[in-house]
Formats: sequence, structure tokens, C-alpha cells
Amino acid sequence: MTTAFDPSHHLGQVRITGVTITPVAFKDPPLLNTVGVHEPFALRAIIEVLTDSGVSGFGETYGDAGHLARLQLAADSLTGVDVFNINTLRGRIAQALSVDTIEGGHGMSGMVTGSSTADRVLSAFDVAALDIQGKLLGRPVSDLLGGAVRDSVQFSGYLFYKWEGHPGQEADRWGAALDPEGIVRQARAMVDGYGFGALKLKAGVFPPEEEIAAIQALRAEFPDLPLRIDPNAAWTVETSIRVGKELDGVLEYLEDPTPGIEGMAAVRREVGMPLATNMCVVSFADVAPSVAAGAVDVILSDHHFWGGLRRSQFLAGITETFGLGLSMHSNSHLGISLAAMVHLAAATPNLDYACDTHWPWKDPEEDVIEGGVLRFTDGGVAVPTAPGLGIIIDRDALDRLHRQYLDCGLRSRDDTGYMQRLHPSYQLQSPRW
Amino acid sequence: MTTAFDPSHHLGQVRITGVTITPVAFKDPPLLNTVGVHEPFALRAIIEVLTDSGVSGFGETYGDAGHLARLQLAADSLTGVDVFNINTLRGRIAQALSVDTIEGGHGMSGMVTGSSTADRVLSAFDVAALDIQGKLLGRPVSDLLGGAVRDSVQFSGYLFYKWEGHPGQEADRWGAALDPEGIVRQARAMVDGYGFGALKLKAGVFPPEEEIAAIQALRAEFPDLPLRIDPNAAWTVETSIRVGKELDGVLEYLEDPTPGIEGMAAVRREVGMPLATNMCVVSFADVAPSVAAGAVDVILSDHHFWGGLRRSQFLAGITETFGLGLSMHSNSHLGISLAAMVHLAAATPNLDYACDTHWPWKDPEEDVIEGGVLRFTDGGVAVPTAPGLGIIIDRDALDRLHRQYLDCGLRSRDDTGYMQRLHPSYQLQSPRW
Repeated sequence: MTTAFDPSHHLGQVRITGVTITPVAFKDPPLLNTVGVHEPFALRAIIEVLTDSGVSGFGETYGDAGHLARLQLAADSLTGVDVFNINTLRGRIAQALSVDTIEGGHGMSGMVTGSSTADRVLSAFDVAALDIQGKLLGRPVSDLLGGAVRDSVQFSGYLFYKWEGHPGQEADRWGAALDPEGIVRQARAMVDGYGFGALKLKAGVFPPEEEIAAIQALRAEFPDLPLRIDPNAAWTVETSIRVGKELDGVLEYLEDPTPGIEGMAAVRREVGMPLATNMCVVSFADVAPSVAAGAVDVILSDHHFWGGLRRSQFLAGITETFGLGLSMHSNSHLGISLAAMVHLAAATPNLDYACDTHWPWKDPEEDVIEGGVLRFTDGGVAVPTAPGLGIIIDRDALDRLHRQYLDCGLRSRDDTGYMQRLHPSYQLQSPRW
Repeated sequence: MTTAFDPSHHLGQVRITGVTITPVAFKDPPLLNTVGVHEPFALRAIIEVLTDSGVSGFGETYGDAGHLARLQLAADSLTGVDVFNINTLRGRIAQALSVDTIEGGHGMSGMVTGSSTADRVLSAFDVAALDIQGKLLGRPVSDLLGGAVRDSVQFSGYLFYKWEGHPGQEADRWGAALDPEGIVRQARAMVDGYGFGALKLKAGVFPPEEEIAAIQALRAEFPDLPLRIDPNAAWTVETSIRVGKELDGVLEYLEDPTPGIEGMAAVRREVGMPLATNMCVVSFADVAPSVAAGAVDVILSDHHFWGGLRRSQFLAGITETFGLGLSMHSNSHLGISLAAMVHLAAATPNLDYACDTHWPWKDPEEDVIEGGVLRFTDGGVAVPTAPGLGIIIDRDALDRLHRQYLDCGLRSRDDTGYMQRLHPSYQLQSPRW
């Protein structure tokens, strides 16, 4: 490029002309957690933001009915807004949601309930706006976030206790994992298949001793891999301290052992290793109380509930400023979210840890984007360099997953209800041990 | 615009090919403060970042010799960096400065000494990079910062005690202001000429009772205008509390009455009105101790020492998250800095206060940009909408101010030395009263 600057080159306003919101469902294995078990389908909403430039952009978020209703409230308020003005998007959405009386719709089966409604709704629009900006500008989204500091973003292998298949269905390709041997077998398949350089065990399913044994088995099998355990606040403070002391030196960090800022702070005073959270610090409103209480060492960001990519970078600025570590949380997701996560992580210098992802649990045949761009090599995903998110929507696939949503009958994530239908004696309890 | 998205539209990398650093001097009136008096010329450095696209961008920063040397160290490290990758710019600059043994060069005559060297050097490059990005993209810098939420940015009238002119020179157009009547006269001229809707008195020059009297005189003359006083830490905790109680209900905020986080916290415990600072919280490293101590209510951002525009937005995210107010500090500056301040302020929703600016103290005939874009109306400056910073460099004027720099002989800001040459009995003291 050697063209001189042409001051008449002015892109002008690029106004939003409409938004389409498409709920989709994709197959999900019976992954166990402390609030129940994943249903046969995971729900997501794909939003497409249309502009008068002819260019559209995409975002991905929760597909729960309540969330869909809020997305529609938000979408209706955005016509005419300049897609370069994310601040105005945010203001419009907050205003639109001021009349929100919708219940539920947090999209996380009760595990994360305190996040900001406005930030949760903003997120997919922020991603879509940045996708459009990048496409118009001919640059990847990571550039709009300050520029990639790494060519590839590392993820951790996310291990779950699971049944061999959904009841009444055949075993899935992963098979059962209900004890240390099953978890190690699963981890081996993940590491061999994706090259992950860190492992995280979703815990809170079995009594702590069994889960400690699983971690010890992982340590024996993978002596060099950082390990994490996340029981989703299934443990009392006392239990958390006991487990934390037993696994000190074994784990990279201990994630959400117990509920609440005060509980986490009490654990942290007694346990040497870093404590991480995506449950007691899930919005900007939680940061100051958490810092004051000394509750955690590491915050798991998640652009889906921290208000999108730009506001997630504010969180990164906060963790850097307060000497906290930064990692990244995930829910079951498709390729649009993975692309957004990769751009964000690439442009966040102080992202200290391999990010979570549910990606391996997704049927490789199912997605809403054309394949080939987002591939795992040595545990990492190369940062897309094409304009915007750098992905291309497969509209036929989007239609298929939307029909699957219509057909599957699920309208909200309900791990607990599904478990109770299968095992009527199951009771929700936190802490459980 | 109705063109469809052309996925082959890829801007590609835009690499830095060179940087020119031009020190300039512009006339400055004898403005008094607690560390001395402004010399006849203020120094700035204008940096131009050149790229292989043929488009260049501009930044403005301190012109002290030590700072110029650091800018050159930084500039030498940037060749080949993609101008969209501000994270990499920052990394390169931090690396280049790791061998920095230069003394001084803070550019603020000892009033702000704890700011981050890397952030102080990065700032002008960050601004220039965003200027280039905006020009290439055909969008104003405010869009790269999340979008303007206001068409015009409000500034406060910045009142100074001053002599009628520099010793040995004619009186300047402002004349003397050495007592409440002089300050009110100056304020009236500022308000009439610029339409300012808030006023700030640079204090710490005379005993507190005289400055309280000046504030009371301003309150009588301008009953509806928010007022601030900033003695630059000239007062003890005891004096600060006394003045603070006396002016509670009169001032919008009390700025840096006393030195240090602990001192400010002690004042804040006793004084009802908000306490503001640009002296005890001047880098990200100061934030956590300040929050822990409860030292201040309002942080005055300043992109010149907070690492540029993007990192200043991180600061804005922090103040929003911690329930702190956000205002903006200024030093003597030219039009590039004013444009950068306006873009930043426009795209920062939680900027709660009218910003500081020294603009009226500058000779209207002197600048490095073509006139006409940045005009004060009703105390505000309209946000430029042209690509990049939206200003055009006047290269003849830049040459003139550079020759003035060469001729004037000043190489560092030294308010104290100038005062001592004129008044040998003057002694630097903080706190003074």
C-alpha cells in the first residue's frame, strides 16, 4: 500500500436497519455438574445485525426464552444507530430493558445469576457491531481491540463427569466418565485430539474425595499439565479449605469451591493456591466488594455476560490494575462465540491462563459457520486474520439448527429439571458437601 | 452506502516506517502555582508516525529534554510494527525503555512525578496510531474508542493567579490577577469569551484565606457555576480540612489539597464534599492503594500520562466500577492534544465533569494545526467528525514553533527555577501552609 491519505475518504455513518434473532439448538452430551446434567440439546441465539451499508455482522448468545425476549426488546431499539457507536448501542439497550419484566433467561441453569442484564444483552450486539466494523474496515476484530499479541489462543481441555449417553439414546463418542479412570481416559482423548496444554475438571458431582482422586489420577497421567477443578460452589467453606489444602501444589487454581464473596474470602485466607471465580464476580458491580474482601486471585472473564468484547477489556484493565489474574469462562457454544473469544483473548495481553471452552463436546458436524477457520492445534486456535470475526455464516446450517430448535421442544436451559425427570430423588443443593 | 460486503476487502498490515519528533515552544503567560511560575515558553513534542500506507498520524506530548530522549528510544523500536496493533506498540516501548537511564523529563515541573514512564511515552504514539487508523478507515478517532456519546465536550475555565506579564515584557492580554478582584475579572473574561459553565482556580499560591476569599468572590459573581480549587498539595491535612469545611457546599470538588494517598484519605474522612486528584493517583499502580485507603472521590484522567486514549478508557472503566467520579486534567497544550482530549471525552460515557484545559492561555496565533476545527462555543468543543483526529497539521506553523523552541533556549519545564531566578527567596515547599 502506498496510497497517499485522501481526506475525502470518509466512510460516513453506517446505520442499523434491522436485527434478526435466530434461536438454534445443537446436540449436547449428558455432561454432569452440581446443578444437574446437560439436556440433549444446548440452546443458543444467533443475532444478525443488518446495516444500510449492505454489510451485516453476527453475534452469538444464550438461547433461553427469557433471553430471546430481552434480545428482541433490545433489537427493536437499535434501528438507526451508527454501528460504530457501541456506547450508544449500550445506552439504547439499557433504556429498552428498563421496562423488562421478563423472568429468568440467564442461560446458565442457575449457576451464574448475578450478572448484569444489560451487559448480558449487549454482548451479542457488541460482537456483531465489531464484526461489521471489521468487515467495513478490512481488518480483523482483534485490531479493533488493540491488536493481537499472540497468533494463537490457548484453551484448556474441559473434562466432565458424564454418562455414556443420554438415557434412551446410544452411547456418544466420548462414552462414560464416572470415576478417576473415566476422567483420565477422557482427558487422554482430549489431549490427543486437541493438544490441550491444561486441563479443567468440572466437579461438584461426586463427594470431594472421589474428585480429589480424579485430580490425583490426572496428575499421575499428565505430570506436566496445569490442572484446575471447578465444583461450582458445591462445597462448604470447611470442605473447600480441606480440599484446597490437599490439592495445594497440585492445582493451577481452585475455581469457585464455595458460594459467595465472603465464603471465597474465608477459603482464600486458609488456602495457599490461587482462587478463581466466574460465580461470585460476574459483573462490574461485584468487583469492588470482591477486592475489598480479598475474595479471589483470578477472575474468569466471559464476554457473554461482561457486556461484550470492549467491556471485557475493561475487566482486563481492572484485573491488571488490581494485581488479579485473568482467565476465560465458557458455556456450550458455537463458532461465532469461539471466534469472538479468540479475538478478545488475542488482544488481551494480560490473559494469563488457557481459556475454557466446551468446543470438543460439540458434534463437529454441527455449527452455524463454515468449517475450516477455527481449528485446534497444540491446544490453541489461530486468530482469524480475515476482516471482522473472520468467519463465514453457513445459512443452510443455521436453518438446520433453527429447525432443530423448533423440533427439540427445549426453550430454556434446565440441567436441574432434566436430572430430576431422570432421577426424581435428585435435589439442588449449594453447598452440597 | 449500499455496497455488499466484499470479503476480498482486506486492508492488510500498515507498518510504521519512521517517526519524526519535533520539539516546539509556544508563548505562555506567567501563570503562578505552588511550585513557581510558568516560563515565557511552554514546551511540547509533536510526533509524526509515518507508515508504508503513505498515511501519517500525529501525537502531542511533553517537550522536556528527558522526555524527548525517551520518545526517541521508543521511536527507534517501532519500525515495522503494524499501526493497528497498539498492544505491540506498548510492548515494544516498554522493552525499549527498559534500558532507560534518563533522569527527569516528567514534563510537569515536579507536580506529577509518579506516573508510569512507559505509559507517558506510549501516549503520543497511541494517539498517532489512532489518528492513522481513523484516516485509513474514514472514521473519527471517537469511533475507535466506542463512539461519541456527546456532540460537544464541556471544559472548565481554568483560572490562574498571574502577573500582568513576564518581567521585562509588556503586560499580556489577560493582565494581572493577584487577588479576588483580579481572579473574578479573569473569570469574567473567560466566561464571556468561551462560555465556560464551570470554573477552576489554580491555588496554592497565596495563604489559604486569600484563596478562600477568591472562591467566595467567584461564588458571588457566578452563583450558578460549579467551582473547583486546586492548590497542588500546598496544604497540610489540618489546613485542608479547615478549608474543606469552610468551602463545603461552595465547591463542586476539592482537588489535591494535600500530598499523598494517606493525607488525602485523612482529609476525606473529615470533609463532606468530593475530593479529586491528579497527583496522588497518576498511574494504574496508584489505583488499588487509593481505593483501599478511600483517598478520593474523583480521578482526573490525563491521556498524556495514563498511556494514551485506549488506556485512559480502562481508567474510565475502573472509576465506573469503583463508583468514582471521572474528570480530566490538562497541562499547557496545543491543538493535537485538544483534539485527542475531545475524542476521548466524547467516547467516555462516565466522564462526569467539565474537563480542564489551558487552551485560553495559548496565543490564538500559535498552534501546529490549521485553525477552525476546534472552537469553543458555550464552554464546549464540538467533536471533530473528519477521519482520525479530524485536524490538519500546518507544517509552516510547526516549523515556526520548532524554530521558537531552538531560539528560546528552554529545554525543560522549570517553574521553580524561573521563580527563583526572579525571586531568590522563593522556596519549594509541600505542604506550604
